Amino acid sequence: MNSYTPTKNDKFSFGLWTVGWEGVDVFGTAVRAPLDPVAAVEKLAELGAAAISFHDDDLVPDDAKREQTLERFTKALADTGLVVEMATTNLFAHPVFKDGGLTANDRDVRRYALAKILRNVDLAAELGAKTYVLWGGREGAESGGSKDVRAALDRYKESMDLLTGYVREQGYDIRFALEPKPNEPRGDILLPTIGHAIAFINDLADPDLVGINPEVGHEQMAGLNYAHGIAQALWHGKLFHIDLNGQHGPRFDQDLRFGAGNLREAFWTVDTLLGSEDRPGYDGFVHFDYKPPRTEDLDGVWETARACMRNYLVLREKVQAFRADPEVIEAVAAARVGELAVPTLGAGESLEELRKATYDPEALAARGLGFEYLDQLAMDHLLGIR
Amino acid sequence: MNSYTPTKNDKFSFGLWTVGWEGVDVFGTAVRAPLDPVAAVEKLAELGAAAISFHDDDLVPDDAKREQTLERFTKALADTGLVVEMATTNLFAHPVFKDGGLTANDRDVRRYALAKILRNVDLAAELGAKTYVLWGGREGAESGGSKDVRAALDRYKESMDLLTGYVREQGYDIRFALEPKPNEPRGDILLPTIGHAIAFINDLADPDLVGINPEVGHEQMAGLNYAHGIAQALWHGKLFHIDLNGQHGPRFDQDLRFGAGNLREAFWTVDTLLGSEDRPGYDGFVHFDYKPPRTEDLDGVWETARACMRNYLVLREKVQAFRADPEVIEAVAAARVGELAVPTLGAGESLEELRKATYDPEALAARGLGFEYLDQLAMDHLLGIR
Amino acid sequence: MNSYTPTKNDKFSFGLWTVGWEGVDVFGTAVRAPLDPVAAVEKLAELGAAAISFHDDDLVPDDAKREQTLERFTKALADTGLVVEMATTNLFAHPVFKDGGLTANDRDVRRYALAKILRNVDLAAELGAKTYVLWGGREGAESGGSKDVRAALDRYKESMDLLTGYVREQGYDIRFALEPKPNEPRGDILLPTIGHAIAFINDLADPDLVGINPEVGHEQMAGLNYAHGIAQALWHGKLFHIDLNGQHGPRFDQDLRFGAGNLREAFWTVDTLLGSEDRPGYDGFVHFDYKPPRTEDLDGVWETARACMRNYLVLREKVQAFRADPEVIEAVAAARVGELAVPTLGAGESLEELRKATYDPEALAARGLGFEYLDQLAMDHLLGIR
Amino acid sequence: MNSYTPTKNDKFSFGLWTVGWEGVDVFGTAVRAPLDPVAAVEKLAELGAAAISFHDDDLVPDDAKREQTLERFTKALADTGLVVEMATTNLFAHPVFKDGGLTANDRDVRRYALAKILRNVDLAAELGAKTYVLWGGREGAESGGSKDVRAALDRYKESMDLLTGYVREQGYDIRFALEPKPNEPRGDILLPTIGHAIAFINDLADPDLVGINPEVGHEQMAGLNYAHGIAQALWHGKLFHIDLNGQHGPRFDQDLRFGAGNLREAFWTVDTLLGSEDRPGYDGFVHFDYKPPRTEDLDGVWETARACMRNYLVLREKVQAFRADPEVIEAVAAARVGELAVPTLGAGESLEELRKATYDPEALAARGLGFEYLDQLAMDHLLGIR
Repeated sequence: MNSYTPTKNDKFSFGLWTVGWEGVDVFGTAVRAPLDPVAAVEKLAELGAAAISFHDDDLVPDDAKREQTLERFTKALADTGLVVEMATTNLFAHPVFKDGGLTANDRDVRRYALAKILRNVDLAAELGAKTYVLWGGREGAESGGSKDVRAALDRYKESMDLLTGYVREQGYDIRFALEPKPNEPRGDILLPTIGHAIAFINDLADPDLVGINPEVGHEQMAGLNYAHGIAQALWHGKLFHIDLNGQHGPRFDQDLRFGAGNLREAFWTVDTLLGSEDRPGYDGFVHFDYKPPRTEDLDGVWETARACMRNYLVLREKVQAFRADPEVIEAVAAARVGELAVPTLGAGESLEELRKATYDPEALAARGLGFEYLDQLAMDHLLGIR
Repeated sequence: MNSYTPTKNDKFSFGLWTVGWEGVDVFGTAVRAPLDPVAAVEKLAELGAAAISFHDDDLVPDDAKREQTLERFTKALADTGLVVEMATTNLFAHPVFKDGGLTANDRDVRRYALAKILRNVDLAAELGAKTYVLWGGREGAESGGSKDVRAALDRYKESMDLLTGYVREQGYDIRFALEPKPNEPRGDILLPTIGHAIAFINDLADPDLVGINPEVGHEQMAGLNYAHGIAQALWHGKLFHIDLNGQHGPRFDQDLRFGAGNLREAFWTVDTLLGSEDRPGYDGFVHFDYKPPRTEDLDGVWETARACMRNYLVLREKVQAFRADPEVIEAVAAARVGELAVPTLGAGESLEELRKATYDPEALAARGLGFEYLDQLAMDHLLGIR
Repeated sequence: MNSYTPTKNDKFSFGLWTVGWEGVDVFGTAVRAPLDPVAAVEKLAELGAAAISFHDDDLVPDDAKREQTLERFTKALADTGLVVEMATTNLFAHPVFKDGGLTANDRDVRRYALAKILRNVDLAAELGAKTYVLWGGREGAESGGSKDVRAALDRYKESMDLLTGYVREQGYDIRFALEPKPNEPRGDILLPTIGHAIAFINDLADPDLVGINPEVGHEQMAGLNYAHGIAQALWHGKLFHIDLNGQHGPRFDQDLRFGAGNLREAFWTVDTLLGSEDRPGYDGFVHFDYKPPRTEDLDGVWETARACMRNYLVLREKVQAFRADPEVIEAVAAARVGELAVPTLGAGESLEELRKATYDPEALAARGLGFEYLDQLAMDHLLGIR
Repeated sequence: MNSYTPTKNDKFSFGLWTVGWEGVDVFGTAVRAPLDPVAAVEKLAELGAAAISFHDDDLVPDDAKREQTLERFTKALADTGLVVEMATTNLFAHPVFKDGGLTANDRDVRRYALAKILRNVDLAAELGAKTYVLWGGREGAESGGSKDVRAALDRYKESMDLLTGYVREQGYDIRFALEPKPNEPRGDILLPTIGHAIAFINDLADPDLVGINPEVGHEQMAGLNYAHGIAQALWHGKLFHIDLNGQHGPRFDQDLRFGAGNLREAFWTVDTLLGSEDRPGYDGFVHFDYKPPRTEDLDGVWETARACMRNYLVLREKVQAFRADPEVIEAVAAARVGELAVPTLGAGESLEELRKATYDPEALAARGLGFEYLDQLAMDHLLGIR
């Protein structure tokens, strides 16, 4: 029997800030003590993770102890075999970023933000991270007159162009990944969805170096289908990284463990990540970005980390069984899913021919598609009754 | 006193299907009789509109009467001076499109859909429309297995590439505008937001010919800020057309008259559309896409059409007064809004210099931004108490 | 192996309008032919249903054929053993109800609506229905000035008082059940949630005769937890009937088959319906109110009906296994769930004693609750991996 | 010209925690220094407020300084003429309340919570508060198995019954007001809406002593119409207190200043609060519960306090002008709004007569209601162009 115990080959990764979340929210103070990054590394390794990620402030909040902290940390990595796969900058916690970092109205703040990123990009490179994430949680506005959105996009682009130039110049093996979010903590955040971020990237100076890091909950806060979103990102070649977690639709950012929230969409998310023979999926680290609820003590925290990985492995197994099931294959064919890969205009055919062809819309309309039968087969697999 | 009576210079435009909506919804049958397109043209002209738009099925549902209908229609246009500024294809009402048009799994349906568009593009060109809208309301899915999203995007792209090729070949002075929507009538619709549509366009064969036609309510159904969305679209040079209406956040598509719903965002929408000296706004037709509620008889319908235009004129006047108000100008400066237009990296300055500069984050954090005072000034203008 | 084939003991019930939905929506016309109620009864019986429900207009839309229709219908019931367990009135489809039925501003409309209900209550009694549902889908408003909400509640109460009086007078064995919904088709509907409806019922003349019929999707459209909602309804003794289906949070009313949408909440819904030894659950008919998607032909329709029942049976089995699992029982105890049944003030203890007792909030705060571990056990049961 | 400067007669009230909010959120630390309650009282008095409200922890967080703090505070009240109109208990900030206070699974926590309330009720009585609010922000759950909702309601009821008994016994002139909220900080909160709270109150031992304190944003987070909600609360006689602020629909709790967010609904909210001759409205304190955005320094904080009151006064003036406008009165009559106050069954008329009367649904359906014209008149008043 599959025990759903992860190994490093599963490429699971956690942010230091996830298991290390102390539980401060808008209405309450910390419920858990600070977690030493070294302790986090050791326990995550024990649980089967392959990698970690960090914000500068998670790892080296105290400049005076920086060297000592990094020494302990790299030793822990070496001891456990964990790697740093991603790093990012905290441009949201300190009050200096109350109006954002890269798009703050205050130019001095923008300069400070950019300097803070540069410093941590160097650390990321030093620690071997291949992806550098930018979540612009404070890049936005609560009111219409306070932010010139087009100027903000100019500044966002300026920063991204400077950063890609810097990485090229330094010869770092790092790509950037923008993480969209519609709102919270700002009233409205710039680049609010997967789509807005990819659209933006296309106008950068070095778009090849920039992709996205979409988070399940962030898209679902806008009522969007995450699996559809990452499928479009894959189509554009822009799915550089992922943030898996759980959410219950439009409300505050819940950051539940992966699997909690919309479980059916989690199934299709894994299906999309796995891809198919014809259309390869995502092969990067499977990164969890979530918050263990405040009800949990440290034991409960580790249960959530374990559960994130377990749910992924379970869903992966189910998706594979679903795709291999002969009845599913038949139902997929009956639903004409594969027919969508066939060009609408035949090879060598002219638009004029297509136009002049005879169509019988009533007859076409009468064709049932059998989508519900197919979906129930997926449900049966998910529920483990096939 | 300004009577807020529109003239043709205001470039207001209405879809035939708006004032002509009979009121059929999921739960009820028609409450109003069909409206003759000629009657719509005459009345809209009388109310001050400048243009109309149509779906093929709005104008020429009956092939047998096509010539006669078009003759009457073009005569009405000539008599009233109204122009056709936009046209679009109905790929959602007939059951043949139950799984979409351009991305239906059924290839025959896709071919029929494409043929239907081509035919109406010709009519659009003949009638002088400069914009051709594609709202893919049925392009989507209710369940995860039934749609291969990447194949669907391939087909969407194939169709757009064929259509832009056709328009180039025919020499038509027509540009396409995609209209995003997150859901309804499909469970999840492809290209669900402004961002997703612009990202998609960037990968088309002839992206210059394709932009977007964002609708207020569609973005707000995803909880997104419409004014921010069209600002990003302008930044990309992709705001080819607009659909103004009203909505109360994430729920069914309400299609209220413009101004109803989120009135404060309507103010900022008009502000964004007007643009500024430095950043030109939108200069196309101001198109309303809404549904007069079922509670209204035909008189009530005309009241809603009148009110759409009136609210736009009122908001335009208020926005202009807001931007010209010396206290506002001062508050905008105090909020450092203009400072966002200044590059973060000084001319001739190196990243290294920026990085090595000294920053005092505590002092920067202490600077108040005065956004709320500025926003209240906008509120005072909106409420007409300044 | 459990084949999840329903029997009449499972008490599954379907509205005639569910499998009979032709697929008309705001954007499209019918995709399926009308379904003869007799055919619906026969097929539902074959699939294992125990009962059906109907609107007057579903069953006897045509007054001229009323007797003949009823004769055929009752014969089908007798032949199949199906019963009519619930009936309701269509006060939303005809344009006369565009501003509602019982709370229409137009008094003549209200009178017509009430007469329509009375007539169908008689038919309901004749056919043996024990529950009479009132869904006030058109009782509401799009704009603030058009509806005097308090007067509307007076009229709603007047009607309910008249109806309970009528049923008492006639000696019918019928109870009424109000079905809340937040919006759609009206902009805002009166009695929008389970809570609002129960609050309202408490002020009726004969509250014992009136309960609620909450629908999964309607509560979820307001982002509310359906399982919590029906638990509160049970607490009040007001869960007279249920409408099971599926929905993806705040958006248009999707009416998916049961299990689709929020599957995890469906698990807790069944858990709540089953109740426990100490707290009995719901023992009425398990009624499905959903719409087979427009993509389906009649075969697909029957697949959805089958799947609604199947998913319920599967979830029931899983819930029972979950509750019987020794590790779950231990985790529930560790989470102190049972401790909530113990009064906060001890028997014979005074408030003063409680107040003067010594508390150590830091020590209490340090107690972990283990909720996530418990929730993952539920997840494992749901996924079928325990 | 009306300068919209408030006086004590306007009965404006603010929570100490509103202007005193330091700006800690899930993603960031404090942006403002703690505000001395005495300074808050003095400045709010200067701005025209009449009253303040407080949580125990806002006013007397430090037990050692309790007497000294209260002495300074009561002196400030006396000096300024401000009164304490409402008090409440903080049962959410300390980690001990991570699973709630009155419905925590942990009985010791519930006891501590109850003791904490009792102590502050005494202080509330001493300071003259007439309303005691209970917002159960942590009473809820993130997962289905961790909370027995019916047991939780038992405990909630137990506490409310004990509290009403205590207040009766002590002879305090205090009524309780429950404040509903759908979610945040818990995944789902018990008593999530106005309706659920009123339903619950009806089953308490002393329902006359308990009403509700609905907050604009909390209802709008569930997509509900706040004006409708408070109208129903007034209908039940349960609108004991109000919390005015602003919100943009289903998303995190924004706590914007009153007027920001849904301005049109704010207009109808004030209209409902004012009531009419026939239906008196709300005559309690007009209490603001909001958070000045983190972008603001202390000057900005006072701007938001000023703006809350200003917007209320402006809307009140506009509502009064709207209701007095002869064209509005005519349009209201044409919309048959008043007809809804007329009983559906005539005096002395039998149901049988109503039933046997003749109706012409087609003719009734043809009557236009003119709601949009009426709504546009309201819009014109709101925009200040009539």
